[in-house]
Amino acid sequence: MDQLKQLDQFFAENRERHLEEMKEFISIPSISSLSEHKPDMRKAADHLANLLKKAGMENIQVRDTAGHPVVTADWLHAENRPTVLVYGHYDVQPVDPIELWDSEPFKPEIRDNIMYGRGSSDDKGQVFMHVKVLEAMLQTEEKLPVNVKLLVEGEEEIGSVHLDGFIEEHKEELAADLVLISDTALYAPGKPAVCYALRGLTGVQINVSGAKGDLHSGIYGGGVQNPIHALADILASFHDEHGTIKVEGFYDSVRQLTAEERAAFAELDFDEEGIKSEAGVTELFGEEGFTYLEQTWARPTLEVNGVFGGFAGEGIKTVLPAKAGAKITCRLVPDQDPYEIVKLLRQHIEANKPAGVDIEVTEFDKGKPFITPMDHPLIQAAGRSYETQYNEKTAYIRAGGSIPIVSTFDEILGTPVVMMGFGLSTENFHAPNEHFHLENFDKGLRVVSDYFHEIKDYSK
Amino acid sequence: MDQLKQLDQFFAENRERHLEEMKEFISIPSISSLSEHKPDMRKAADHLANLLKKAGMENIQVRDTAGHPVVTADWLHAENRPTVLVYGHYDVQPVDPIELWDSEPFKPEIRDNIMYGRGSSDDKGQVFMHVKVLEAMLQTEEKLPVNVKLLVEGEEEIGSVHLDGFIEEHKEELAADLVLISDTALYAPGKPAVCYALRGLTGVQINVSGAKGDLHSGIYGGGVQNPIHALADILASFHDEHGTIKVEGFYDSVRQLTAEERAAFAELDFDEEGIKSEAGVTELFGEEGFTYLEQTWARPTLEVNGVFGGFAGEGIKTVLPAKAGAKITCRLVPDQDPYEIVKLLRQHIEANKPAGVDIEVTEFDKGKPFITPMDHPLIQAAGRSYETQYNEKTAYIRAGGSIPIVSTFDEILGTPVVMMGFGLSTENFHAPNEHFHLENFDKGLRVVSDYFHEIKDYSK
Repeated sequence: MDQLKQLDQFFAENRERHLEEMKEFISIPSISSLSEHKPDMRKAADHLANLLKKAGMENIQVRDTAGHPVVTADWLHAENRPTVLVYGHYDVQPVDPIELWDSEPFKPEIRDNIMYGRGSSDDKGQVFMHVKVLEAMLQTEEKLPVNVKLLVEGEEEIGSVHLDGFIEEHKEELAADLVLISDTALYAPGKPAVCYALRGLTGVQINVSGAKGDLHSGIYGGGVQNPIHALADILASFHDEHGTIKVEGFYDSVRQLTAEERAAFAELDFDEEGIKSEAGVTELFGEEGFTYLEQTWARPTLEVNGVFGGFAGEGIKTVLPAKAGAKITCRLVPDQDPYEIVKLLRQHIEANKPAGVDIEVTEFDKGKPFITPMDHPLIQAAGRSYETQYNEKTAYIRAGGSIPIVSTFDEILGTPVVMMGFGLSTENFHAPNEHFHLENFDKGLRVVSDYFHEIKDYSK
Repeated sequence: MDQLKQLDQFFAENRERHLEEMKEFISIPSISSLSEHKPDMRKAADHLANLLKKAGMENIQVRDTAGHPVVTADWLHAENRPTVLVYGHYDVQPVDPIELWDSEPFKPEIRDNIMYGRGSSDDKGQVFMHVKVLEAMLQTEEKLPVNVKLLVEGEEEIGSVHLDGFIEEHKEELAADLVLISDTALYAPGKPAVCYALRGLTGVQINVSGAKGDLHSGIYGGGVQNPIHALADILASFHDEHGTIKVEGFYDSVRQLTAEERAAFAELDFDEEGIKSEAGVTELFGEEGFTYLEQTWARPTLEVNGVFGGFAGEGIKTVLPAKAGAKITCRLVPDQDPYEIVKLLRQHIEANKPAGVDIEVTEFDKGKPFITPMDHPLIQAAGRSYETQYNEKTAYIRAGGSIPIVSTFDEILGTPVVMMGFGLSTENFHAPNEHFHLENFDKGLRVVSDYFHEIKDYSK
């Protein structure tokens, strides 16, 4: 614990320098989606490599991919200690609409102890935080309590296009006991959260076709099946009136929530009025027998994301349309398998196919759901480390969305993944005036330092 | 009958002149939808007025409306005889795509006894035919067997925008015992048809709204109602799996087909394979217990013309959409009332409203269904007149579409309407290379002449 005190002092003494360095890193406009920023991507990767070098990390490499470079580094001298793979990303979202920014996105500035700038929170600020933890330990103790590998990509905001391949190709090099990611948010200001499970994703498009072209509804109406009617029948067959999914076998592989999980969720402040106002709905609606958090975190969905067919312009056009279609995605929970679910969807559509039309089903990309059980020692340790700096109990949460790269780590490396983020959901990640509360940067440095010590005796 | 022989001889002797005059009339590009043809509309109306003057008609007027002019004329000296209001239109469809025409649309030419040119069949050729019947009678006999009023509009192809108002305003002037329209087609080449009923139309748009904006389906999915799901439930509730409409009371006012009508329809050649190939469907589909012709002519429909909501682009976008909507029209049959049906639709939607969304219903224009019963003496007389020139039994048919102006005559003037057309459904009314088989022009002159004699003793 002396070591942690020493680190605390180091962070305090170096705070001004750290913030200046963070500004430098943020000021490189590493927008991965815009080709005119391709040189900036390389610049940001090189800049990060330099930060790692100054921190005392080893084997620092800026590695080419078919897209933007990946930065790797390691420090592997903690014999008989676990290995942590720290993942993050140095790319950022575009800045439009630029006119809504109060200060320039790539001229970061601090106002009221908040760092404003694109990437300050998502995710350069948090990547920078990890680098400074490593630097502090290596400078004050000349060693780390665990082995650390670092993997920072430049394509997270464009779907981590080349990272799956990179991880697959270098899976032995990247082997670790856990993956640590700081790219999520606290549960609320002052209330830390470890995210231990994500939903997966799969989906299909249904194309229904009838006549060879749109027909006159006066001439043919009543004697020819309408593809929109057929599609509506299929779509309506997916749920009952309470929102429960009626696809046979759909829930068969769902891992039930444990009593501990339900209790943990129930303990969280849940602001129903806040959610309703945030979404702009007058009532919540979901599967019976589950709370809203359970519904959105731990229950699968079958969501029609889009529907189209016939005439959608202004006014009226009395066609009997030739085609109709719908796009459907399912959010999956452990232990549902995306391939199995698509099979069940296909069977359901086939079994509910109305007369008089042809139906074609095409498949979208698939992502597995992910879970490191809530009671896993690495998850519980993360919660304890948070609590050394925050005065609130750590929330053990799931998230309803999908982070494909987390599933990749889970699947290819076979490691637990610990998501310990220090952002806030209100920090405008993908919007103008992105910012990062430096209070959480300060606490994050100490929480992560504590965590490395906390898990140093961990073994599988 | 001597008179008819005399007319027959007149038509034969004047055929060359008639066809030249028909060409002149067609050559005026009276496209009502294109403002650059506004002077041509007036020119065509004046030209028609001149034709009527030469024919010997009286009270000829080219009358301004807020749109294109209406041409009226009469001859009212047949004391104690019925009055026929002949309706037609002198406006035509646009000609695009012009490159697909084999000869110029407004330089009419005759090839193989077929008149090619825009409006040759729809409806200038048929209006011209009526003028020549009147001319022939007035020149050979100096009188008509019935009183005749003529009403030829210039806005049929753009929805008869101003004609309802014109008829309402001049309903006493236009009073008649029947309205005679030649703007429909024979049942098949050589097989005449009297159309005695049309379907009406009404419709609603359903707008379903949930959240205030599209939501992330990972974050909110499972806890918030999806407007597309709600809409699909409503749309699916409208029909059973056989296509029967499940809206309570929807069929209550439907006038059942008489045994005679069903027998008449059953006698018609019905080419199921032909219909399937024309529509491009692999099977027909409709309400059980009715034949295809009954379904499309004499049974009401509830057709979803368009559906929209969420993401409809290429690929995938995992939104939980904020809105969804559908456009619905109903083809109505006697004695359904469009206002009553919209009331039933509203009740049905309200009764089937899923939880968690708001629903707004807006209404489209309404048109009443129309019928002059098949056994009405004026309908049967038309069938007999056809049979004097054609070697096939007249088909007594209904049509599944709606011609709003027919309902207007029915409603405002309270007269039977007799649709005796001489076109063919293959004559490209609204397409390139519109044409008119002159064989049917020749027969039409004689059929209409016969009809005027046939009904001269009719009284209500």
